[in-house]
Amino acid sequence: MTEQSFPLPWRYEVRLSGLGGQGLMLAGRLLAEAAVHYDGKYATQTQSYGPESRGGDSRSDVVISDQPIDYPHVIKADLIVAMSQMAMDRNFYTLKHNGILIVDEDMVEHIPTTMAYIAPITRLAQETVGRAVVANVVALGVVVSLCEVVSRQAITNAVLNGVPAGTEILNRRALEEGFRLGEQLRR
Amino acid sequence: MTEQSFPLPWRYEVRLSGLGGQGLMLAGRLLAEAAVHYDGKYATQTQSYGPESRGGDSRSDVVISDQPIDYPHVIKADLIVAMSQMAMDRNFYTLKHNGILIVDEDMVEHIPTTMAYIAPITRLAQETVGRAVVANVVALGVVVSLCEVVSRQAITNAVLNGVPAGTEILNRRALEEGFRLGEQLRR
Repeated sequence: MTEQSFPLPWRYEVRLSGLGGQGLMLAGRLLAEAAVHYDGKYATQTQSYGPESRGGDSRSDVVISDQPIDYPHVIKADLIVAMSQMAMDRNFYTLKHNGILIVDEDMVEHIPTTMAYIAPITRLAQETVGRAVVANVVALGVVVSLCEVVSRQAITNAVLNGVPAGTEILNRRALEEGFRLGEQLRR
Repeated sequence: MTEQSFPLPWRYEVRLSGLGGQGLMLAGRLLAEAAVHYDGKYATQTQSYGPESRGGDSRSDVVISDQPIDYPHVIKADLIVAMSQMAMDRNFYTLKHNGILIVDEDMVEHIPTTMAYIAPITRLAQETVGRAVVANVVALGVVVSLCEVVSRQAITNAVLNGVPAGTEILNRRALEEGFRLGEQLRR
């Protein structure tokens, strides 16, 4: 998919789902900021929190459009990332027909479809970058590589500006590992 | 209003509206985090961005409930903060009947109702705390003082943990000025 293939006006809905503590809210914000600050689009980002936060159900929704967004809720997701079994089970039916499903290989055992990109996101963060905590940014790299809803330059800028000072190099590596993983999955 | 007066199950919708650069997205996140991490509630927070971000229309919606939130969109706001004329004009009709309207005195000229709390939020941030940039946290103080949807302790903890390192003292003062302003307005 190239950027030119989006119909106009277009609206693209992304849901990042998993466990509290996986950094998916930050990832959603970074994706929205990439779209807005570096690609000149409109975006909304919704995060849901519960008292169980860390380790509990976590969800970050991003809607990106070329026009102001009246309805910031995900209706049928164009792309879902599932980084836990509960996230997989709860959100699968929100995926659009022919939508993109990205599943963390080591976090989800049962996948209710064969049409999924099964990606070792957390393992790659741990083994290649050396820090499981950057799995969220690896996931962002995979997302952008597969759907191109924002440019690689935009997401790179958003990540470098949005992560805690001192972690830029680590997160840049995580993002690039994600791009590479996405390219492998497309083949 | 005391916390006991909320019916169960309850849902409380807050819209913080104004200009990009006023820090309302951070304020919304802090309010949601106060509800969840320190008061044991559920919350969602939605931010809308546009390419004109800084200086353009900006909106942060927070929904707080004692139960998981299926629908994170503001339907009819229980409380609106308007920190620009455009925000006032666009969002007034979203306010619930008998909802709480808080208006920044120096940022809004025309207020379409007499039932508003007119508060010198930005001026207080500038003159009393010495930094207009903490107007967002002054606004949070006014909000919590007037609606008590989260406890003062919860919002204080969320602010101290969520603002950039080194700005805690400044933001604590801003929050307390907001509490005080809210108390004056209730009289």
